[in-house]
Amino acid sequence: MRASQYFLPTLKEAPQEAQIISHQLMLRAGLVAQASAGIYSWLPLGNLVLNNIARIIREEQNRIGAHEVLLPTIQSADLWRESGRFDAYGAEMLRIKDRHDRDMLYTPTAEELMTDLARRFVRSYKELPQIWYQIQWKFRDEIRPRFGVMRGREFYMKDAYSFDLDEASARASYHKMMVAYLRTFARLGLTAVPVRADTGPIGGDLSHEFHIVAKTGESLLYYDKELDRLMQDPSTVDVERLMSLYAMEETMHDASNCPVQAENLNQARGIEVGHIFYFGTKYTEALGATIMDASGKSIHPHMGSYGIGVSRLVGAIIEASHDERGIIWPESVAPFKVALVNLKVGDVACDTMCADLYAQLEKTGVSVLLDDTTQSVGAKLATMDLIGLPWQVRVGPKGLAQGLLEVKNRRSGETQELSAEAVIQMLTERLGA
Amino acid sequence: MRASQYFLPTLKEAPQEAQIISHQLMLRAGLVAQASAGIYSWLPLGNLVLNNIARIIREEQNRIGAHEVLLPTIQSADLWRESGRFDAYGAEMLRIKDRHDRDMLYTPTAEELMTDLARRFVRSYKELPQIWYQIQWKFRDEIRPRFGVMRGREFYMKDAYSFDLDEASARASYHKMMVAYLRTFARLGLTAVPVRADTGPIGGDLSHEFHIVAKTGESLLYYDKELDRLMQDPSTVDVERLMSLYAMEETMHDASNCPVQAENLNQARGIEVGHIFYFGTKYTEALGATIMDASGKSIHPHMGSYGIGVSRLVGAIIEASHDERGIIWPESVAPFKVALVNLKVGDVACDTMCADLYAQLEKTGVSVLLDDTTQSVGAKLATMDLIGLPWQVRVGPKGLAQGLLEVKNRRSGETQELSAEAVIQMLTERLGA
Repeated sequence: MRASQYFLPTLKEAPQEAQIISHQLMLRAGLVAQASAGIYSWLPLGNLVLNNIARIIREEQNRIGAHEVLLPTIQSADLWRESGRFDAYGAEMLRIKDRHDRDMLYTPTAEELMTDLARRFVRSYKELPQIWYQIQWKFRDEIRPRFGVMRGREFYMKDAYSFDLDEASARASYHKMMVAYLRTFARLGLTAVPVRADTGPIGGDLSHEFHIVAKTGESLLYYDKELDRLMQDPSTVDVERLMSLYAMEETMHDASNCPVQAENLNQARGIEVGHIFYFGTKYTEALGATIMDASGKSIHPHMGSYGIGVSRLVGAIIEASHDERGIIWPESVAPFKVALVNLKVGDVACDTMCADLYAQLEKTGVSVLLDDTTQSVGAKLATMDLIGLPWQVRVGPKGLAQGLLEVKNRRSGETQELSAEAVIQMLTERLGA
Repeated sequence: MRASQYFLPTLKEAPQEAQIISHQLMLRAGLVAQASAGIYSWLPLGNLVLNNIARIIREEQNRIGAHEVLLPTIQSADLWRESGRFDAYGAEMLRIKDRHDRDMLYTPTAEELMTDLARRFVRSYKELPQIWYQIQWKFRDEIRPRFGVMRGREFYMKDAYSFDLDEASARASYHKMMVAYLRTFARLGLTAVPVRADTGPIGGDLSHEFHIVAKTGESLLYYDKELDRLMQDPSTVDVERLMSLYAMEETMHDASNCPVQAENLNQARGIEVGHIFYFGTKYTEALGATIMDASGKSIHPHMGSYGIGVSRLVGAIIEASHDERGIIWPESVAPFKVALVNLKVGDVACDTMCADLYAQLEKTGVSVLLDDTTQSVGAKLATMDLIGLPWQVRVGPKGLAQGLLEVKNRRSGETQELSAEAVIQMLTERLGA
């Protein structure tokens, strides 16, 4: 993409209402713009990040055999009356009357609609297990939306629902999903700690929250250091062992009764980005969803549900990965992998080199944002640091006279001078498709 | 995908409420399930089709330099009061009160929100032209939703908005978009006729509707045969020439005054799937969106808006492409490219051959639905005809004894007997990534 033709409205100063760093940086870097209280428009750069995160989540859901569906945002209240949640759910549920004065609602979560699909379309134990997921907009009418996309009203969420014949099989689905989550967060460049959680209004008896470690996190976590070692390879992790390790939020942690010795206990701040539940037959009973088991008996399938806040993750990644100059994107979610900065637009050698590098990198699948604008060098470099693309390649007349370009790694800040060939080789090897 | 592990709830009979063939086939083939009146859940097979259509639309929007954004589904009424449409828009707009009793709405179209983005973030003529698009859910509270996804209430739509310095430039954007539409529909395997249209509540003075030719179409079209010839290569089409040709809906067609002689006039039924508008400064004036032109003067940018009904297209494609046995997907949008049917599950030779073909085709990027269930042969073949994958490969013990598989093209109905190597070669050459 050429910056001269792009829509990337960066801001020098963050608007005053933005209190936390991710909110400030998302507005300054032109990722989002507020549309109304707690509701955001995703601008081109932000949309690319959102899609990259969604793609990784999707790949890991597909890997465990989950099937993607897409449910409506607006539902009838009828199913929610069957489960009892239409009245039980608080004012956070956006209740709506349609033109025929029927009660509708904007989906805050989809246990009812998914259970209804199972009730209508799954007949036999032979069809189980099933895991269905969607990546879809949700709405929760927060009384005081704040912190940008971290606590917005309209938000993008992956929600999955498992259906199993019995508790043992349901726990196996729960374990599979936990591995998928660990893999997902690792691919997003994040350290995510699964902590024991209350099941809250979803109900059930087994639940974990996933917290991303970030200095600015709202929760304080205490967890066995063994967790970090176990999670190094999420594909081979022993889930039973992982779940047996101590990991608590501050509110549930009691230092005087902690089974882990102080020197083996990590303490870190975290941001909740995922929550998984096993809740047995709560919804299949309420909605009368049954299947035939192997002996011909009618039973209620056991269910779990599994959420990841996709739009929230954009903010959480920034909280976990930034410096005083701006965002530092992990390579897997960066909107473009490479910032190619033409330091002297109009200089034939610079223009030619940039056009050439741009074409060669894009050809090998490395996405590039080429700054071909006439802004000052200082402004260009500040913008690229702000928007946080993993690699910067700076093309200027002095370096070119010696056949050299300057390459900067945004995370380490290290720079090196390399020939064009060496730059292409390094970046395509590292980032190419 | 192995059918034994998939979620594909096909129905033998269409529910009575489904009046038109696409609605019947979408329910029978397990593409969608009704959630409430005019609101559908997309099941795995339908979700794949929806994504394939969206991907092609996205690629063609990107090709003309449009930038993808993603706007919220729920908006404040404030902007719509500025444009005057909050009151002017009929009961089809879903009006909502949030918990603070503020007027909100579910976006039926996004002129206001897009114009607001331009007002806030675009300053200078140097930043124009801009085209922004999104693929996002919309809601129109139809009084009598019917025909399945063809006239639903919640629907998936690509909507794009162009911003230009003046009318000449805006018309160039309009032309670019028309070419993008012709390319998009051609890639979807459709014949789409652009006919002159009224601008209706969007306003403006130039507008075209795109109608897909289908025997069951709701509109009757009259158009110059030259159109078909011109559109054969959408990339090189002369848009001025195209727009000068006669193409009218029945309501605007007057046989006694038609400038095209009868023998040069095509008559066909069509389904509207796209609508484009040029409406000048209607919204930029109403919202006070200005930019600086080259002479330093403040002017209102000229706008156009451009819609394609993504979920509607799923129904429209089926209306245009089916037979008495079921759907016939164009290869570009098929949920899987190949139906691999194991005619005798449990037979070692059949099972081994199917596993082998499955692995080899998937490896080369050809998506396969392997029927490894224990249904009867008749039921399996009927299901595959119903869900309409472009190619069927049938693996049975009799053929295998001679080293042969049966390959059927769903559209032509032609079958041939080929060796496994020949099948793989033909399908990967034709369908491989």
